[in-house]
Amino acid sequence: MRLADLPTPALVLDRAALLRNLCMMAESVSRHGVTLRPHLKTAKSIDVAMLAAPGFGPITVSTLAEAQYLAEAGFRDQIYAVGIVPAKLDAVAALNAKGADVKVITDDLDTARAVAAHPGHVRALIEVDVGEGRGGVRPDDASLPAIAAALGPRLAGVLTHAGHSYAGRSVEEIRAVAELERAGIVRAAERLRAAGHEVGIVSMGSSPTALHAASLAGVTEVRAGVYMFGDLMQVELHTQPLDDVAVSVLASVIGRKPAQNRILIDAGALALSKDRGTQTMAKDYGFGLVVDLAGRPVFGDAIVTRAYQEHGVVECDRPLPFDALPVGARVRVLPNHSCLTAAAYERYHVVEGASDQVVAVWPRVNHW
Amino acid sequence: MRLADLPTPALVLDRAALLRNLCMMAESVSRHGVTLRPHLKTAKSIDVAMLAAPGFGPITVSTLAEAQYLAEAGFRDQIYAVGIVPAKLDAVAALNAKGADVKVITDDLDTARAVAAHPGHVRALIEVDVGEGRGGVRPDDASLPAIAAALGPRLAGVLTHAGHSYAGRSVEEIRAVAELERAGIVRAAERLRAAGHEVGIVSMGSSPTALHAASLAGVTEVRAGVYMFGDLMQVELHTQPLDDVAVSVLASVIGRKPAQNRILIDAGALALSKDRGTQTMAKDYGFGLVVDLAGRPVFGDAIVTRAYQEHGVVECDRPLPFDALPVGARVRVLPNHSCLTAAAYERYHVVEGASDQVVAVWPRVNHW
Repeated sequence: MRLADLPTPALVLDRAALLRNLCMMAESVSRHGVTLRPHLKTAKSIDVAMLAAPGFGPITVSTLAEAQYLAEAGFRDQIYAVGIVPAKLDAVAALNAKGADVKVITDDLDTARAVAAHPGHVRALIEVDVGEGRGGVRPDDASLPAIAAALGPRLAGVLTHAGHSYAGRSVEEIRAVAELERAGIVRAAERLRAAGHEVGIVSMGSSPTALHAASLAGVTEVRAGVYMFGDLMQVELHTQPLDDVAVSVLASVIGRKPAQNRILIDAGALALSKDRGTQTMAKDYGFGLVVDLAGRPVFGDAIVTRAYQEHGVVECDRPLPFDALPVGARVRVLPNHSCLTAAAYERYHVVEGASDQVVAVWPRVNHW
Repeated sequence: MRLADLPTPALVLDRAALLRNLCMMAESVSRHGVTLRPHLKTAKSIDVAMLAAPGFGPITVSTLAEAQYLAEAGFRDQIYAVGIVPAKLDAVAALNAKGADVKVITDDLDTARAVAAHPGHVRALIEVDVGEGRGGVRPDDASLPAIAAALGPRLAGVLTHAGHSYAGRSVEEIRAVAELERAGIVRAAERLRAAGHEVGIVSMGSSPTALHAASLAGVTEVRAGVYMFGDLMQVELHTQPLDDVAVSVLASVIGRKPAQNRILIDAGALALSKDRGTQTMAKDYGFGLVVDLAGRPVFGDAIVTRAYQEHGVVECDRPLPFDALPVGARVRVLPNHSCLTAAAYERYHVVEGASDQVVAVWPRVNHW
């Protein structure tokens, strides 16, 4: 099977780029002597998990569907890193009863009591907010020891995510956020230890801070997910070069407007997602950057400027080579945000570098 | 099964609202004496298709997956309304060989030749651009008769979509676009008839123009899809009241920030989509409007202001009732754009009005 023969749109994964990205993160984290707990929210794939967390190493998941799918594949040690609700504890305990060790997170006192009271085996980390302002209690918040006390022996540790690292516009800015993240989560752990609690896991992470942190002192593990595939946002965040964006959408030209220097492709809002993550970055890629079938950026700044449900409008800063782009010609689109783009597909068509030979088809676990 | 028992996030469809929307469109179109060819791109559901196009009436589809799924369910007369590429003709012809009559569309001379030369049974409509500037040739373009001549007896008609009706900010503005759409597609049909071609189908449509057109003279059918479910964009476009938005996302509260008058829910970018369709409309609903479990807008302007992969941040113009919103409490979110939101789910949980009893589960056909 070749990319030229696949129905479009389809999701392409360059395994060579994936391996480079995994290697880069593994080297970066191992310099600090901490554990890498890869986040499978982006890949949602057993095949990718086997490479990112070899030997069924610790992983992070974002849905119960991922937790179950990966537990059945042998990944015991998981953190389900979205604030838990009591109604989901039965499902977690059921996985743990079958041999998994899926830990949950909470920043809520009543939920901590529900975790402590659950008849099954469930442990929780306390979610800490180091400045993003999404979930979590502040490291110095009065509720932190109360939540730990409510969890009692079911306290597994503390966890934070410096999502505001995505606002960083230079390595220096990201490094500063990483230090706030590290200091904040270590501060939370120290407060709890001073109050007599055992804090096994001190977990921080986002792809930018995991890569750029100057120090991870006091942290036991870092989590990161999107680094595996990368995307145009990560390129803008200086976490990877454009060549290492590992996922792309295979699309066909379905219309041509030479007078407007514009083509239509069959990858629109459903195939690419409507994520506009690069809108506020140094370079705005619209809904994605159009490259050739081999993944090479040969068209200049050919970007998807409009995304209808099934139509993408491609415009370019230089004349498009219309002779090479008849209706039916194939291109690939690098996404702004690979987590959202990949979620539109049930499987990856795996290639190696610029070869158009599909060497494997890897399934994904979507939904919840 | 009750909404209170479903794992979240989940997609809810209010059948009573759906039926009101179907009735409204059927009445509106039948006044003009033309055929309604509902577009299943939004619903992607056999159960909805049976209601929207009763008696296996003519339908429109946006993917080969929909075409196949609905053909197997008995919907023979289809238009696949995304510009065709030659590589997809075999799949269309295979459906038609099994009894379907799936017609394709093109605005490209070489593709028209490929349709004419295909050994199977495939007919095409010529896509006409009445001002949106997406796909299609202009009604007066010199290429129009050439494409018709290339199709020869495989010409099934002409088709247009006034997607720019979505830029209308009043019924009058939408009505003006509808008249341009009608006049443009009729002009294209008349040119081809004058050149000796038989033009069986003269098809126009979008939900706003189908509802608001003052005249459909010369048109044989209208297409519309999103009207079935509606969404916040349609409310802003005056095609339906808020009460008739038929789809919503069931979500759980996963975090609370009373000091910031903010809650977190487990419906984020994947559960809602990142569509920001109301951003440029009179009222900006962020990523969706939060209503209660019964679908009632009881929280004022509680909207999802930020959408992370699995987290939605809800903020409100008045104090949120935190006593009624503990972690685990359920709310529903009305979407900006139901086509994109529904695409994140494999099935509908069907309710009737404000009842939380799930009366049916209807599958969807996603992907391509």
